[in-house]
Amino acid sequence: MKLVTAFAPATVANVSCGFDILGFAIDELGDEVTVKLVDTPGVKVVEIQGDGGKLPFDADKNTCSVAVQAMLNSLGVNLGIELSLFKGLPLGSGMGSSAASAAAALVAANEVLGNPFEKMDLVPFAMEAERIACGTAHADNVAPSILGGFVLIKDYDPLDVIKLPVPDGLYCTLLHPHLELKTMDSRSVLRQQISLKESTVQSGNIAGFIAGLFRNDFQLISRSLKDVIAEPTRALLIPGFYELRNVVREIGALGSGISGSGPTIFILSEGKEIALKVGKESKKVFEKIGLEVDVYVSKVNDKGAYVQSH
Amino acid sequence: MKLVTAFAPATVANVSCGFDILGFAIDELGDEVTVKLVDTPGVKVVEIQGDGGKLPFDADKNTCSVAVQAMLNSLGVNLGIELSLFKGLPLGSGMGSSAASAAAALVAANEVLGNPFEKMDLVPFAMEAERIACGTAHADNVAPSILGGFVLIKDYDPLDVIKLPVPDGLYCTLLHPHLELKTMDSRSVLRQQISLKESTVQSGNIAGFIAGLFRNDFQLISRSLKDVIAEPTRALLIPGFYELRNVVREIGALGSGISGSGPTIFILSEGKEIALKVGKESKKVFEKIGLEVDVYVSKVNDKGAYVQSH
Repeated sequence: MKLVTAFAPATVANVSCGFDILGFAIDELGDEVTVKLVDTPGVKVVEIQGDGGKLPFDADKNTCSVAVQAMLNSLGVNLGIELSLFKGLPLGSGMGSSAASAAAALVAANEVLGNPFEKMDLVPFAMEAERIACGTAHADNVAPSILGGFVLIKDYDPLDVIKLPVPDGLYCTLLHPHLELKTMDSRSVLRQQISLKESTVQSGNIAGFIAGLFRNDFQLISRSLKDVIAEPTRALLIPGFYELRNVVREIGALGSGISGSGPTIFILSEGKEIALKVGKESKKVFEKIGLEVDVYVSKVNDKGAYVQSH
Repeated sequence: MKLVTAFAPATVANVSCGFDILGFAIDELGDEVTVKLVDTPGVKVVEIQGDGGKLPFDADKNTCSVAVQAMLNSLGVNLGIELSLFKGLPLGSGMGSSAASAAAALVAANEVLGNPFEKMDLVPFAMEAERIACGTAHADNVAPSILGGFVLIKDYDPLDVIKLPVPDGLYCTLLHPHLELKTMDSRSVLRQQISLKESTVQSGNIAGFIAGLFRNDFQLISRSLKDVIAEPTRALLIPGFYELRNVVREIGALGSGISGSGPTIFILSEGKEIALKVGKESKKVFEKIGLEVDVYVSKVNDKGAYVQSH
């Protein structure tokens, strides 16, 4: 009986200037999934830990099993697979929790099956899991969780996913305030029509950001890390957001933004020292307004999901 | 009496996915300006050739003199400068005609004065000329005409201009149909509100395009060369636009779009052979609908405006 465990990292989607098209992966923080090949056909979730009992065991509803089932369907095989999920990520935090579970399950299952797929080929299967978890088959969390680094989702029809370079020394501080913010609410505050001017500004910023990644130009990255599309309305749902932005810029961070649809906030910094200081000072901002917050400091991960043990 | 002549190239602004933020320069085709330092203070336009008598000699209205005056103002000097303009570019064609005149004048004047400015510093002076010529001080023609290559105008406040790499072997075919299309009309058809979805698609394409330039990835450039913002309405003003697009894609061009606000159309190709064939076949498309067209085939110019002679 073959047994493989894989790890998949947390991810930050949107990245301010990359609304719905950009994401990146975080080191260390993430989910683990163990895949076991068994004789009885069918994909089953047999164990879930670290979710506080909130995630479904139903194979049609759990992102791990949905992703693996999509993979098996693509291969046209009906194998027996048992999945054990160990959540390292908080649910509904905006850190790509559902995506990390699906990514870890796919990388482990791919290994169990002798790696019939390249990592890039796993993205569509994980997107099927996102469809179950979020209502849309978006790729801006699953693609960076699988592939690592910064990933551009250029197009969905057909899917066009581009891995981008990660400047050496780029660190991320994640702040997860203990706020309940439903993706649904966070989407509903988005304006469906925006001005031509705003669209042009957003385009200029994503273009500058991509050039900054290729050039290792931290200042260009910093000048580009702005969001005129989603942030103006979503930030209102996160108390302390604007004060935090000022505090971290003063410390020397490159910039901050909402991770995915929130409430987690990400801050990019050049070097670990600033990223740690950002974490410390940010905590104070939230404590002042009586909000508990978890702080994670990590390099931007260029590796993505990987097999941990056989 | 010091005498310097400079050349500045034609430019393509917008570049489909880069509405209002991207431009690039063309080889060979462009304007020349001779700058003469004289004793009597004041900037004067003393000669204009190749414009069919259409351009103003009034120093407050000609883009050459307006640009040079802005430069002298910045230096706080009141020198005597005589300008002779030799138009190589058709007026109002969407090839950056006004910008090339200003760029050539500035590079020549800068040389006459012993180069007090870096090329990048000349951009704001040329923008003042665009304000006179077009009503807005846009930089997406003047910046590539001065600097060469692909240039991103990331921001105007403050001005943030980023020169981008040019993939080796990238050629441009320019088609200038003999149509009168006023920038004013071409702007008035633009929608001032666009959907969030369209904005996201445009962002994905400009992000892919920038990544394609850095990676020399012609296929990625091709997949990104789309415009969902301006083209859907502006293309209606250019007969044959959509047929042309199909024809050039079939020949193997990377893609086509409206140059600036038109009516010139640009087509990017990998290699000169395809670019030439594109020119030949495109001409047939326009002839079929009874429209005369000038065809230019050129490498994308990485050098920008330069001093020709002293």
